[in-house]
Amino acid sequence: MPDIRKKTRIGVIGGARPGKASLEAAFEAGGLIARAGAVLVCGGLGGIMEAAARGAHGAGGLTIGILPGPSPADANPHIDIPIATGIGYARNSIVAMNADVLIAIDGEYGTLSEIAYGMIYGKRIIGLGTWEIKGVIPAATPEEAVRSALRP
Amino acid sequence: MPDIRKKTRIGVIGGARPGKASLEAAFEAGGLIARAGAVLVCGGLGGIMEAAARGAHGAGGLTIGILPGPSPADANPHIDIPIATGIGYARNSIVAMNADVLIAIDGEYGTLSEIAYGMIYGKRIIGLGTWEIKGVIPAATPEEAVRSALRP
Amino acid sequence: MPDIRKKTRIGVIGGARPGKASLEAAFEAGGLIARAGAVLVCGGLGGIMEAAARGAHGAGGLTIGILPGPSPADANPHIDIPIATGIGYARNSIVAMNADVLIAIDGEYGTLSEIAYGMIYGKRIIGLGTWEIKGVIPAATPEEAVRSALRP
Amino acid sequence: MPDIRKKTRIGVIGGARPGKASLEAAFEAGGLIARAGAVLVCGGLGGIMEAAARGAHGAGGLTIGILPGPSPADANPHIDIPIATGIGYARNSIVAMNADVLIAIDGEYGTLSEIAYGMIYGKRIIGLGTWEIKGVIPAATPEEAVRSALRP
Repeated sequence: MPDIRKKTRIGVIGGARPGKASLEAAFEAGGLIARAGAVLVCGGLGGIMEAAARGAHGAGGLTIGILPGPSPADANPHIDIPIATGIGYARNSIVAMNADVLIAIDGEYGTLSEIAYGMIYGKRIIGLGTWEIKGVIPAATPEEAVRSALRP
Repeated sequence: MPDIRKKTRIGVIGGARPGKASLEAAFEAGGLIARAGAVLVCGGLGGIMEAAARGAHGAGGLTIGILPGPSPADANPHIDIPIATGIGYARNSIVAMNADVLIAIDGEYGTLSEIAYGMIYGKRIIGLGTWEIKGVIPAATPEEAVRSALRP
Repeated sequence: MPDIRKKTRIGVIGGARPGKASLEAAFEAGGLIARAGAVLVCGGLGGIMEAAARGAHGAGGLTIGILPGPSPADANPHIDIPIATGIGYARNSIVAMNADVLIAIDGEYGTLSEIAYGMIYGKRIIGLGTWEIKGVIPAATPEEAVRSALRP
Repeated sequence: MPDIRKKTRIGVIGGARPGKASLEAAFEAGGLIARAGAVLVCGGLGGIMEAAARGAHGAGGLTIGILPGPSPADANPHIDIPIATGIGYARNSIVAMNADVLIAIDGEYGTLSEIAYGMIYGKRIIGLGTWEIKGVIPAATPEEAVRSALRP
């Protein structure tokens, strides 16, 4: 199996219009994910998705963005591997499906749907200032969230 | 426009393995929906979906079941119009999309994803012993839930 | 099982910009489908989809339109049961999945994808002035197409 | 924009049960794609998909596999970036959407649906012993197909 396949994939989910502190947390989480040798999976657009991808890509990590629209070019500029789906918000299922573990940061109803899908697909989900949902493991800082995500 | 198109579509969402009281509430809600002249939309399978469809179909109403699998024959026996999708849990988006208003009864993470999609698509959601999510309007009984759903 | 469930579902597939003769053939096929007591399934939009639905609905039949976009209101005015999917052209798979048998009339690449899905899902496909694809049964007139579609 | 984003993405489409000559052609095409510095996109499973990925990955190229099922682990062992979709054959739309240009080799109805989607999404399609469909550019050898695919 190729080496990339052996890396842990961490999904970072969160909304397109977060506050400044959440953006900084996402950027920091992205960097930590990359430095840990993990791959970042996200929804490929703006806000939390872009901040996490900027953090991960800037730290030399690989970033995958799974987009709602039909054009790979819609991905934010920090996505290495844009995957267009053309299935709208139903792509939230695909984001959750392609992460080994998820970190939810802030977020609105889109993020809530991704948390729900993560639970349906049996993924561990770490929450950082996000929806308080049964089963989501709270973390206080990006460091704690990424450390918790990487725990075997 | 055809007469069926003019009817309100009420989605009833909820899990496949609810308790007895939730099943009775779903059955009752289905009957009230049909007697109000509305169309029932649901996920087409068992549990809450089947109880609501049994209630609505038994009261002479029309029932639409939007299924995760590829076979229309998988719908429960109270579904008039089974729609197979073959897209798995991503069909939860389609259930929410095709209701004018949603009633959530009990439910696990699948229901949570449908609540999230309902909010994304700007639908009113009435909750009956379900997830307590910002924006969901609580109801105490099936009567109150259906009355609230039918409010213009 | 409800009575509607026992009816044969005939899918009529074809493009949004057909010639006049194809539109007339689709309208006629729709009428024949309705008079035979079958349910019409189509893509819910204009062109062949609208002509077939107009024929079927005008003859008292039930019409289901499976739409690419997120809004049931986008269906043409002859659709009784609009099903919005929000998954774009991937909905072509769902159209083919929900017919017992398909009649392809005229059509461009969208129709070709629906013919392909019909074959993948093991459906009989009757062709009326459409793509000549291995496995598609040619018919010369709408009557012949509908008669062939209804053959057990 | 990341360097990977600047690379041409070539989709290789074809069936899961091809003849030996088609498998060899797919393997050869995969190697040529990698050596040209392009990224391989395919459906991630067996047959043509696996042969092309084996050729590309063995030659040091990057391979993306877009899978019908819900598990990234179902990808063949030569896929670097497996993307699970869980939407069944509707994923054929996503395969076509994520290639700049497509090479169709052999193939049955699944491949036909991908050719149709490729045309819908305005992609150039090169055919190597596959369906003869209006708009598909025929090639006689893997070299000719890849050269034609890389033409600006």
